[in-house]
Amino acid sequence: MNKKNNQYMLEAFKLAAKGKNLVFPNPFVGAIVVKNGKIVGKGFHKQAGKEHAEVNALNDAGIKAKNADLYVTLEPCSTYGKTPPCTAKIIESKIKKVYIGALDYNPRHRKKAESILNKKGIETEILDFGEKNSELNKVFNFNIKYSLPYVHLKAAISLDGMICDSRQNSKWITCEKTRLYSHYLRAKCDAILVGSKTFNLDNPRLNIRNRSKTITKDPAVIIISASGKLNLKNNLLKNTTEREVLILTTPSGKRNLQGKINNHNTTIKSFSRRTHLSIKPCLTYLKKRGYTSILVEGGSSLLEQFLQTRLFQELHIFMAPKVFGKGSKNFSSNANIDFANKKNNLSLITSKKIENDIYLRYKNVYWDYSSIR
Amino acid sequence: MNKKNNQYMLEAFKLAAKGKNLVFPNPFVGAIVVKNGKIVGKGFHKQAGKEHAEVNALNDAGIKAKNADLYVTLEPCSTYGKTPPCTAKIIESKIKKVYIGALDYNPRHRKKAESILNKKGIETEILDFGEKNSELNKVFNFNIKYSLPYVHLKAAISLDGMICDSRQNSKWITCEKTRLYSHYLRAKCDAILVGSKTFNLDNPRLNIRNRSKTITKDPAVIIISASGKLNLKNNLLKNTTEREVLILTTPSGKRNLQGKINNHNTTIKSFSRRTHLSIKPCLTYLKKRGYTSILVEGGSSLLEQFLQTRLFQELHIFMAPKVFGKGSKNFSSNANIDFANKKNNLSLITSKKIENDIYLRYKNVYWDYSSIR
Repeated sequence: MNKKNNQYMLEAFKLAAKGKNLVFPNPFVGAIVVKNGKIVGKGFHKQAGKEHAEVNALNDAGIKAKNADLYVTLEPCSTYGKTPPCTAKIIESKIKKVYIGALDYNPRHRKKAESILNKKGIETEILDFGEKNSELNKVFNFNIKYSLPYVHLKAAISLDGMICDSRQNSKWITCEKTRLYSHYLRAKCDAILVGSKTFNLDNPRLNIRNRSKTITKDPAVIIISASGKLNLKNNLLKNTTEREVLILTTPSGKRNLQGKINNHNTTIKSFSRRTHLSIKPCLTYLKKRGYTSILVEGGSSLLEQFLQTRLFQELHIFMAPKVFGKGSKNFSSNANIDFANKKNNLSLITSKKIENDIYLRYKNVYWDYSSIR
Repeated sequence: MNKKNNQYMLEAFKLAAKGKNLVFPNPFVGAIVVKNGKIVGKGFHKQAGKEHAEVNALNDAGIKAKNADLYVTLEPCSTYGKTPPCTAKIIESKIKKVYIGALDYNPRHRKKAESILNKKGIETEILDFGEKNSELNKVFNFNIKYSLPYVHLKAAISLDGMICDSRQNSKWITCEKTRLYSHYLRAKCDAILVGSKTFNLDNPRLNIRNRSKTITKDPAVIIISASGKLNLKNNLLKNTTEREVLILTTPSGKRNLQGKINNHNTTIKSFSRRTHLSIKPCLTYLKKRGYTSILVEGGSSLLEQFLQTRLFQELHIFMAPKVFGKGSKNFSSNANIDFANKKNNLSLITSKKIENDIYLRYKNVYWDYSSIR
């Protein structure tokens, strides 16, 4: 691979990664315009419904785009969506050659841009950045492949795997620095899922406290509660909340809640049967509602269901240097897991020491998801 | 601190660390002889009863030691023990100046060498390596301070803190590479302690398989078994074993075992009462018997007793990327631990990724041992 091309494309990938959870359900894309060895335009996709990366980069370059090269991390789109096709903008800008980092996973666009551009005399070349794009757009690709949201599980545990000490305390297991660090996960997702017990006991805010300068928004909150017995005075149900709070419940749970919640951003979705409140139908519904990536923050009952069904893609463990011992609650002790099946093993991607805590990020890579299509 | 002196002393510390578990119950010590800016002699303490580091370095230097400087990590000894005092050898070698890394923790020697040497016209200077020596000789210092062995706990666990899956399998939780790596702990200790259940079920060899070129020996094996019901056909009780196998038991347990063990290196120690088989009296006895550092390899009952009594100094966790879930056995679930007491928190010293496993080394630093003197 040409070294210079490689550098420009990596630059475009850096831009792409600046998009945060506002981009969903679109993929992260970055683009740069290069003329006579100089970068004359930069852009990335900032928010769903707004301009694509190529358009931002071409607008940034202005008339300098004429006869310049365009480096774009993902194949440009070629159809009308919320915005006109990027291929049209590229043609209009009189770009000489387009370097493409990876083909689009979405069948609507896959392998379409090249012939459109070539017909107009614009050269194209695909560089070998498929793997880098797969990592960057794992959520997008997973969504398209399985019509399900990409699921992160998060658990703060003691050294002996306890999620809750014998005094039923589960809120402050790890240190303050770790808890703040863990908020980065919230910024990666468009919704946070909690069980009713966690919601009632912890009265969580589930907001992003270590917000970086890049634009992000607090994810929506989803509460699963079959009975609908929720503490209506809790923070998230106050009428000051600006993000969606979605309660997944049963018809009787809905009757319990109806008319009692002041927060106008709260939606109550009732599933006709209690069994429909299990993981798979909930996830399918959430994807249809537009949620692309979900962070499951507990409690143990929800975590156990996800561990059992394997309907998660990443597991994030924040482990404190404490042994809780007798009477405490393990995060998996009710989960039926076929541990002898090697597909149930996880792959350790990152480990990071935070004071005396350790953060461990695992991927569920050995599992075969084709059965859940 | 003089930069050159610093470098020479670090060199001596590197040598000191080459001593392995043969050194116990002595401290690790290294020494170098420097003349006209050149290292002319090197030595370290290799084995209890053999020459001290200073003597090895001075012998290595030979006649070049005259008017040279000696760098020794620990204050030279000044009394007759198994070998003559190092101060005598230093005087005899006509050393000009002695640089001392740290004072000896042992009251027999502490602050004695300087005046002896000074009287003979040999200059002395103490460099500030106390902390480095404390880390290197943590076992030696702990032994002297508390008259107890330094205790390492080791546990191979799943992500949910399980030491044993629901099929009672506890042998192969972590991957092969991790298991081999964990043997480095055995090379650091002079004895390995196991409970009778682990001994009977796992039939372990408890030897050092990744032996480095430095001299080490397989640690002794200590089995705690009140009933004396041990599988006599197990590897460690065969008559081929060359190291001590010590069985701590009760009078009735002793009667069960007497005359039935072929291995002539096996000793049966019976404590008059069952309660004497608890951690504290066992450790006191083991220290008196000459054991300075002990690795506790399980099972869960022993680990729980150590976690409860806090009579351990380090905890080594080897964690596999698996969740065992329902029916498996947690490594602490019967331990009564006052987890709210911050003294029970551990300090995370090292973390190391080994394939998909993680190794975590914790120190029990917040605990106050003065109560156990």
